[in-house]
Amino acid sequence: MIETGYMVEPVGFIQSNLTTRKDAPHQAIEGAPDAWIEVISTFAEGLEGIAAGSEIIVITWLHKTNRNIFKLHPRGDRSMPLTGVFNTRSPDRPNPIGLHRVRVLEISGNKLKVGPIEAIDGTPVIDIKPVLPKAADS
Amino acid sequence: MIETGYMVEPVGFIQSNLTTRKDAPHQAIEGAPDAWIEVISTFAEGLEGIAAGSEIIVITWLHKTNRNIFKLHPRGDRSMPLTGVFNTRSPDRPNPIGLHRVRVLEISGNKLKVGPIEAIDGTPVIDIKPVLPKAADS
Repeated sequence: MIETGYMVEPVGFIQSNLTTRKDAPHQAIEGAPDAWIEVISTFAEGLEGIAAGSEIIVITWLHKTNRNIFKLHPRGDRSMPLTGVFNTRSPDRPNPIGLHRVRVLEISGNKLKVGPIEAIDGTPVIDIKPVLPKAADS
Repeated sequence: MIETGYMVEPVGFIQSNLTTRKDAPHQAIEGAPDAWIEVISTFAEGLEGIAAGSEIIVITWLHKTNRNIFKLHPRGDRSMPLTGVFNTRSPDRPNPIGLHRVRVLEISGNKLKVGPIEAIDGTPVIDIKPVLPKAADS
């Protein structure tokens, strides 16, 4: 194990009808619902300029996962060969970071309605970024 | 400030000719070089299945940044209006997470050559994900 690290802090939380990993689709395009992000008031001014209709990347900390998995069967399908965790989008990974490219549907104070998003209720949001029109890193 | 958080651990480090933020372009498409990612041996098996030529998303922890900035002038340009940090790709942000969509150019043991990438030498890598062909969240 690594002895040094950095503290990542929630800037908000997902409010969703999805309440368990079992109910969540593997990917947003597989029938995920819309959800609200409630940004902690300390960080609310960081939302300024985000408009309904824009696309954003929501970065989550998938807190209900197993961080000690380095190889796995993609999508839990045992007919698939074992592969390295960094070659999959599994939520079980050393740093359980989720990337969700979503559209902003509504803004109400420090809350954003976004979707579709497969993160479950209570998932910490650790960053929000705009999608850059011509970026290589969106 | 938030009292609770999660420990994010480096799984590797960037080896680049870019050594200071001043030298680094704002975005990879603005002239960034190729660089190596050296994955810590503990996590090396997580690379299995990644092939040269594929596109990946490298997630970094931009360790030389200011986490207490919530509004700023995009790209440090004072002629631009102040905007919320979550409406920018600034490395100065509450959780200094960098997203870098890059191509894998070469693989040598636990090292990947990727590019172009604007992260500076020594930047911790905290996750690597494949780009999904049809994903909404790539």
